[in-house]
Amino acid sequence: MNAALRDRPRVVIIGAGFAGVRTAQKLAHAAAEVVLVDCRNYHTFVPLLYQVATGFIEPSQIAYPLRKLMRQLPSARFILAEVRRVDFAARRVETSGPPIDYDYLVIATGSQTKFLGVPGAPDHTLPMRTLEDAIALRNHILHCFERAASTTDWQLRAQLITFVIVGGGPTGVELAGALQELIRESLRKDFPSLDMTQARVILVQSGDRLLANLPPHLGKYTSRQLRRRGVKVQLQTKVKAVSARSATLADETVLPTSTVIWTAGVVANIPPTDRDLPAAKQNKIVVGPALQLADHPRVYVIGDGAYVEDSGEPLVGVAPEALQQGSAVAANIKRQLRGLDPVPFSYFNKGRAAIIARNAGVAHLFGKLAMSGFGAWLLWLGIHLYYLPGLSNRWNVLASWLKDYIIRDRAVRQIIAVPSRLPQVLPEETQPEMPDLSQKS
Amino acid sequence: MNAALRDRPRVVIIGAGFAGVRTAQKLAHAAAEVVLVDCRNYHTFVPLLYQVATGFIEPSQIAYPLRKLMRQLPSARFILAEVRRVDFAARRVETSGPPIDYDYLVIATGSQTKFLGVPGAPDHTLPMRTLEDAIALRNHILHCFERAASTTDWQLRAQLITFVIVGGGPTGVELAGALQELIRESLRKDFPSLDMTQARVILVQSGDRLLANLPPHLGKYTSRQLRRRGVKVQLQTKVKAVSARSATLADETVLPTSTVIWTAGVVANIPPTDRDLPAAKQNKIVVGPALQLADHPRVYVIGDGAYVEDSGEPLVGVAPEALQQGSAVAANIKRQLRGLDPVPFSYFNKGRAAIIARNAGVAHLFGKLAMSGFGAWLLWLGIHLYYLPGLSNRWNVLASWLKDYIIRDRAVRQIIAVPSRLPQVLPEETQPEMPDLSQKS
Repeated sequence: MNAALRDRPRVVIIGAGFAGVRTAQKLAHAAAEVVLVDCRNYHTFVPLLYQVATGFIEPSQIAYPLRKLMRQLPSARFILAEVRRVDFAARRVETSGPPIDYDYLVIATGSQTKFLGVPGAPDHTLPMRTLEDAIALRNHILHCFERAASTTDWQLRAQLITFVIVGGGPTGVELAGALQELIRESLRKDFPSLDMTQARVILVQSGDRLLANLPPHLGKYTSRQLRRRGVKVQLQTKVKAVSARSATLADETVLPTSTVIWTAGVVANIPPTDRDLPAAKQNKIVVGPALQLADHPRVYVIGDGAYVEDSGEPLVGVAPEALQQGSAVAANIKRQLRGLDPVPFSYFNKGRAAIIARNAGVAHLFGKLAMSGFGAWLLWLGIHLYYLPGLSNRWNVLASWLKDYIIRDRAVRQIIAVPSRLPQVLPEETQPEMPDLSQKS
Repeated sequence: MNAALRDRPRVVIIGAGFAGVRTAQKLAHAAAEVVLVDCRNYHTFVPLLYQVATGFIEPSQIAYPLRKLMRQLPSARFILAEVRRVDFAARRVETSGPPIDYDYLVIATGSQTKFLGVPGAPDHTLPMRTLEDAIALRNHILHCFERAASTTDWQLRAQLITFVIVGGGPTGVELAGALQELIRESLRKDFPSLDMTQARVILVQSGDRLLANLPPHLGKYTSRQLRRRGVKVQLQTKVKAVSARSATLADETVLPTSTVIWTAGVVANIPPTDRDLPAAKQNKIVVGPALQLADHPRVYVIGDGAYVEDSGEPLVGVAPEALQQGSAVAANIKRQLRGLDPVPFSYFNKGRAAIIARNAGVAHLFGKLAMSGFGAWLLWLGIHLYYLPGLSNRWNVLASWLKDYIIRDRAVRQIIAVPSRLPQVLPEETQPEMPDLSQKS
């Protein structure tokens, strides 16, 4: 549809993560048409992915349907499509479906795994960035135990129940703790013939402490807690090669394992564009103080794809950063719609928290207050329950947590692989333009 | 492991459907070692598959983990493996893992879809026999609506939101009613730009009435209820060809559609064996009165794979038949273990029921009492809730039903495809025998 024919300016948001969804929500009452584009029909609550991977909760409990969200936003519509290219000259987003013209563009496409040049890592490690990744990881872990139970080869068995997690950030720590609990509490009962003291969870961190973004003593507390629970924490160690049967550490130690989970590196996931964008480290796009591209004041990049500093330090890529950026950009677009200049973004860091295992967490609040133990654990659960979208999801997740806490058994232990045979409905159409947008869809 | 070395006779059960699981449960206290083999690690509660396909309930709510079941059966163990062949001469089951010797064998491998020679059906129809099928169908249905919402081609749009269901048995009827409700109640709100009066659910039945196993007036009631709700019921019609874009009926009518769901034909799913087995129609295996093979008194075939008559009529393949056969075979094996002869199986038909849509069901009890309407609907829900394995599953399914009944919206609307990348743990082992069975696993 030709831009001149539209009665309201159109804001196109690419990506329905924290940043994109927040932008759409905050534009609900703006004098603009909002189009949210994503290649999935749900918003993923990423902080709880590790709980899907370890069988705590159902996948759908952290996957909020985007069309359900759209029902609450009268001026917004959702399009399920993959973005192929952004054409700034034509102000157009090219997708797997019809192209979409924009007046304002918000690129909120997040990040993807970076394998840091480690041989074998792209083929033989399991990522944990999407809901599909988390389900595939759950399937893989359970399948390794099934295989281990039906072999007499003790070496193979040890390999099958050794799990190497690369990366000592929150994802690696949370996954290590939860996996160890899954094995010790739930799978131990499911596989009485396996000696679970042979099962090993190994957390490999290149730096000298876990959770490098938190104060050092919290990282040390975290190592201590994980080790007490049986996780092998290896600091100042890198994985230098991965195969289908092993991980090789920098000191040439070979760990026989069928499972290497990669949580170490990220790189911005920016769609191809008609011109080069200024990139900082991790391919993040350099934006101005108001989060716009320098020469495109109506194009914003936010979330993990943007290089933004706070008090001279780059933002690290956590949900609150994305949410605050989404709110700021929505406010700036509203200002622009009224003929005003956008105002600079500043991040208010309320704090960070990570969960280690049952009854143990760490938190660092307002840059001052450091907490560890039961209080931080409870705080983490409360914060995530509060931010989880959907009332019934909150209730169901809380019920799953309570049940797991009391009976020490995981609810979701099915190996369910569903082949992707979706887009074969028809050979891809090549349509010149979008359908009529005067109606919501 | 050599049979002579075992201290107790071993009963191997292939297949963890209704028949196989019931057999294992009833052998809990027998003087035998029980080995249950299945290629999935969960038992599927098949009668509710259609509710997974239409977004009522979560997949895991009808998938009971087999190892959780095994915890309650001290003499039983579970093996996740595909059965490749049964060698009656060697009394051995060959699997994707180590082979398993048996003293008693129960073949409970169910049935699979039969496409009745319709061209295009194997490639272009969607089955609904497994949990994976149901999830894939849900994904497919939702994706069709997404595609329809982003096209301006009205013909393509009509094709994308036309759904043809082949087969007027309980599965076809239940799916037609639930799909129509999904479209009219839930998707209508998700896709405000689509004209849902264009969405069509077409149920094609070759016979002259739906639910041919129930009294004729119940079939007529079912047609009437479905039609009143907007389902197009086409009786005495066959689908003669299927493509990616259409279904062609016997009278040459071409229905443009991207979705043909095949619930029409079944055929027994018997593993390859070292000798030919006596087969009846649908490849079902002819068994003796006590459900054994004629020349193998310690080999039983039960469930959908067995040809069994009741009052001169063959059993039709519903869950109560499989459950009763499982109980009977367990009792017969216990008799054989005590040196007694097995006794003939007789089926006690308590009745049949099918659900049509909200507030409408049909039931035929004890061969006499025919019910239709709200009472039969409530009865169906109660029976299925009662038989659903797992207390928390029952509670969760009931909660999903109540929620759907009250707010008329489906909980599960995510398109989640999880690629199957499981068995690449290692190249397949070739192991001479099973691990030590003196311990449970």
